[in-house]
Amino acid sequence: MLTFIGLGLYDEHSITCEGRTALQDADRVFAEVYTSKLLGASIADLEAAHDVEIAVRDRAGVEQDPEAMLTAAETESVAFLTAGDTMISTTHSDLRIRAEKRGIQTRVIHGVTAETAASGLTGLQNYRFGKAVTLPFPFVHGAGDVPPSVIDSIEANQERGLHTLVYLDIKVDYHKRRDGPDDHETYMTASYAAELLASGWRDELAVVVARAGSPDPLVYADRLSVLASESFGEPLHMLVIPGELHHIEADSLRSLANVPADVVPLEE
Amino acid sequence: MLTFIGLGLYDEHSITCEGRTALQDADRVFAEVYTSKLLGASIADLEAAHDVEIAVRDRAGVEQDPEAMLTAAETESVAFLTAGDTMISTTHSDLRIRAEKRGIQTRVIHGVTAETAASGLTGLQNYRFGKAVTLPFPFVHGAGDVPPSVIDSIEANQERGLHTLVYLDIKVDYHKRRDGPDDHETYMTASYAAELLASGWRDELAVVVARAGSPDPLVYADRLSVLASESFGEPLHMLVIPGELHHIEADSLRSLANVPADVVPLEE
Repeated sequence: MLTFIGLGLYDEHSITCEGRTALQDADRVFAEVYTSKLLGASIADLEAAHDVEIAVRDRAGVEQDPEAMLTAAETESVAFLTAGDTMISTTHSDLRIRAEKRGIQTRVIHGVTAETAASGLTGLQNYRFGKAVTLPFPFVHGAGDVPPSVIDSIEANQERGLHTLVYLDIKVDYHKRRDGPDDHETYMTASYAAELLASGWRDELAVVVARAGSPDPLVYADRLSVLASESFGEPLHMLVIPGELHHIEADSLRSLANVPADVVPLEE
Repeated sequence: MLTFIGLGLYDEHSITCEGRTALQDADRVFAEVYTSKLLGASIADLEAAHDVEIAVRDRAGVEQDPEAMLTAAETESVAFLTAGDTMISTTHSDLRIRAEKRGIQTRVIHGVTAETAASGLTGLQNYRFGKAVTLPFPFVHGAGDVPPSVIDSIEANQERGLHTLVYLDIKVDYHKRRDGPDDHETYMTASYAAELLASGWRDELAVVVARAGSPDPLVYADRLSVLASESFGEPLHMLVIPGELHHIEADSLRSLANVPADVVPLEE
């Protein structure tokens, strides 16, 4: 049996009760925390909170050498942990397909996603979001401040009145050093993303969502050029580019996101 | 303090560990389970599992008479529970805005959503979903089998290669009787939805997702006309209309959803 468990957004308490039980019942526990990671908990925190031992696999390890996990899952109960929801990466889907093809029973225990949190925290209704996009660092693509595909997606959503969740890039450098792991991660901030969008697209209303799922999330809305000059603290940051705002959504931004009256006027 | 807690998808164990702690720490607990409800647990199950007392409010009660909750939240720690994620209904957003305007601190603890589960269970990647739609019972709208707005949304997503999650209507009749509550609920089945779509739209590939978040979810893919003649057991059902399928997504449907080879051919 191979159980895929999403750990949720932030720390060792973000997992569901069902997930925690499955984790504790497992004979062996693997985690892939490279695709996305919990910012509020280390592997040691997870081990201590749930009284389990966790073997960490990097993405390449899951892709190229799933054998140890699959062999174990043929005779034992194996849990496979990922941050956020499980199955977010095709690597995880691929592992599940391999297991199913070998006749190993699989099970999926879901975790809270950033999309869910972006909607819940901002008051922007979840059924009014279109396709989400990721804004990459310019040096990654070399196509100016904002890749045309990102602009196309935002504008295609807006034409239908829909909101766009903009995931911000994470750059991971793996330094393999003798004296231990030293992965360096750079998280794109909402300010930097706002600057890119204001200069490479248009200076429109956007909503910053920082530290979704943590005990101190921040939601803040203004024009992109204004957001570019503010700072929003610790990662992870996301942006939402709203489409049409319904009455309650506009109210939410005024009440929860400090949006100025000239950006979202009371009488629309 | 007013803490909004999403209970997740299925039963008393679908809540996060963080949510459970907040629930148990609350001085008073209210629940609104009319907008959406847990199919695997009653209020009594929730009370027993988490050792709390829960006061149930219907949607109208939350909208028209939030006073008791808000007054309590001014001096005590109040938890407000909803099935799935919190803030799915504008009623919940409205309650949060009222609380904030009165200077009551609010907090949101997210729950797993049906959207998350639809993606995780089918292997269809979450960033490749467009706007979701709800398919209503024909007698509700009187506009033929499928309302034009639903078709427009599905086709606008498909033009961009995106998948569409189709929520299926729930019809609730409230019978107020002296001998106790007797709410009658009719859940649209995936078969019935497939029949509507096959006759009112096109006979395309669709994926049934039944009982997402439960211990026995079912995922099954075929042409709509074929799905219309099958049955998929207990509610809740959803449908996904895929857009373009990536290699791993097609593999997932073959491996997890029994899709016939002539509907999703191996060589694309």
